[in-house]
Amino acid sequence: MRARDLAAAFPTVTLGTSALAAARLLAEQDLPGLIVVDDEGRPLTILPGTQVLRLAVPPYCQEDPALARVIDEAHADRFVAELGGRSVRECLPGQPRELPITDPEATILEMAALMARTRSPLVAVVGDDRELLGAVTLQALLDRALET
Amino acid sequence: MRARDLAAAFPTVTLGTSALAAARLLAEQDLPGLIVVDDEGRPLTILPGTQVLRLAVPPYCQEDPALARVIDEAHADRFVAELGGRSVRECLPGQPRELPITDPEATILEMAALMARTRSPLVAVVGDDRELLGAVTLQALLDRALET
Repeated sequence: MRARDLAAAFPTVTLGTSALAAARLLAEQDLPGLIVVDDEGRPLTILPGTQVLRLAVPPYCQEDPALARVIDEAHADRFVAELGGRSVRECLPGQPRELPITDPEATILEMAALMARTRSPLVAVVGDDRELLGAVTLQALLDRALET
Repeated sequence: MRARDLAAAFPTVTLGTSALAAARLLAEQDLPGLIVVDDEGRPLTILPGTQVLRLAVPPYCQEDPALARVIDEAHADRFVAELGGRSVRECLPGQPRELPITDPEATILEMAALMARTRSPLVAVVGDDRELLGAVTLQALLDRALET
């Protein structure tokens, strides 16, 4: 079994997508993460769900648990509103060293290792021109791996 | 809104659970991760789904993409079988610095920051004696955050 056999269509966002729309897409479609593509549909980055949260959490709260605690409940409840009119471009975290992107020939073991290493429950499968062919989720991978 | 309002029952595994059963639980119940508890039901660690994969992927494949590639497709397809008779105890990765565990008073912002920081789409909520009260998933958190 190869990436090409497991890759399925997956929604994408662009750098111009509003960060709030991106968060809604993740929540409403119960996605494990988001694929950010350029204008030609080539993946620029993959954001695991936990890193989509980074779009909304103020940086000082991310690194210091004590600072997050001093924000009162009413303000904390509205943290997602901070996304306001910002775009995905404005909210992107620093680029990770390795992106969970692979080619159609990758085996299920290679994809599992890539997910474990990049801590991403989502791998984008790209063709020769880096065009997005589909995505493999951790759930899809485990479902197939446990079948065999 | 506080952790106590969002915490919901969540399945647990113990150190003695077979690693294969743990992987099946994750896949079949479509869980974002697993909570490993001790004999008194207190969380010992939280494994995000991507780290449950680590239970099955040979260490040399996790760190070196080129090594994962040389395993042929037939063997790669059966990587989960490597879990064989091993228990969760035998497969646990090294302890991370910070665990995604919080108390019932944590706000939604604190939990979001904790998920982002620990890269865990799952937070365990514990009481005064570290007993597990429930768990908050990334999906549950985002659903509530986007409502307000």
